[in-house]
Amino acid sequence: MRIVGIDPGLRITGYGCIEVADGGITLVEAGVFRLGKALSKAERDVAEFRSGDAHSISSRLSELDRDFRVMLDRLRPDVVAVEALFAHYKHPATAIVMGHSRGILLLAIRQLGMSLLEFKPTMVKKSVTGNGLAKKEQVQLAVRAMLGLAEIPEPPDMADALAVAICASRRADAAAIAVG
Amino acid sequence: MRIVGIDPGLRITGYGCIEVADGGITLVEAGVFRLGKALSKAERDVAEFRSGDAHSISSRLSELDRDFRVMLDRLRPDVVAVEALFAHYKHPATAIVMGHSRGILLLAIRQLGMSLLEFKPTMVKKSVTGNGLAKKEQVQLAVRAMLGLAEIPEPPDMADALAVAICASRRADAAAIAVG
Repeated sequence: MRIVGIDPGLRITGYGCIEVADGGITLVEAGVFRLGKALSKAERDVAEFRSGDAHSISSRLSELDRDFRVMLDRLRPDVVAVEALFAHYKHPATAIVMGHSRGILLLAIRQLGMSLLEFKPTMVKKSVTGNGLAKKEQVQLAVRAMLGLAEIPEPPDMADALAVAICASRRADAAAIAVG
Repeated sequence: MRIVGIDPGLRITGYGCIEVADGGITLVEAGVFRLGKALSKAERDVAEFRSGDAHSISSRLSELDRDFRVMLDRLRPDVVAVEALFAHYKHPATAIVMGHSRGILLLAIRQLGMSLLEFKPTMVKKSVTGNGLAKKEQVQLAVRAMLGLAEIPEPPDMADALAVAICASRRADAAAIAVG
């Protein structure tokens, strides 16, 4: 079974694809979609959002939509697992902007007819580290160990996406129920 | 010039289309997209979202995407104006869920090649009532008077969408700059 995990964001969306067979998991591909490259700080998302720059946001959503569909079309996963947006963000505007990206991703998954699963961040962290409140570095180290990687997955968005995929692979039964 | 105003939501998205000519404005059409009809309370959005029901949310986003594109294709506006999500919601989850819908709408507007404008709720309220903090009822009455309607536009989401369109019609110069 092939699973793609997604860690959604407006500036950076991480994705990670794994193959599950005979109880073992192997890395197929992982990466990030970096959008609006000219701007480097995540805070700019919020600033742009607050300034009401829907034009710039729609441009980035359009890029994300295109790149995401190309990736899914190439990797053809059986299941796409997405990180839930339950976290309490420092800034509410960040959560709203993240929601924009996530809406685009959920729609694309559905329109491509792929099975969709969602996991809370705490569930993902617990699944790979044993601790629902693990830090980013712990998640990166756990993902590296579980997939037998030579390097720590960078940026953390990529490690998080792989962690979501690994979490989904361990919940195949729950998955079948959730997708219906 | 034909303008469509949008008041985005996951449960109900209002839209209102006006024609602007010789300084006068007339109603073309207005309505709402009601999604997930089986569930009646807005709070259910948040409950579903919190329960991690991405499948249900993606289904609704898919409905919204389809209905919204059909409407824009039929009305063929010169400009689409969308209410900004600057409000401080009682519940942060509401804002995130709204963000999902809004992302879908912004992407559709862009993909259809239509000009996009965004206005803060206070700007919209001030534009139609003279008061940036006007209540829903005041907005409904103002929209009714300005468009010479026999009835008060119901539900308020429809009146809000028409108010966004009216606000956009009064900012044609700013519009040209913002869209570029």
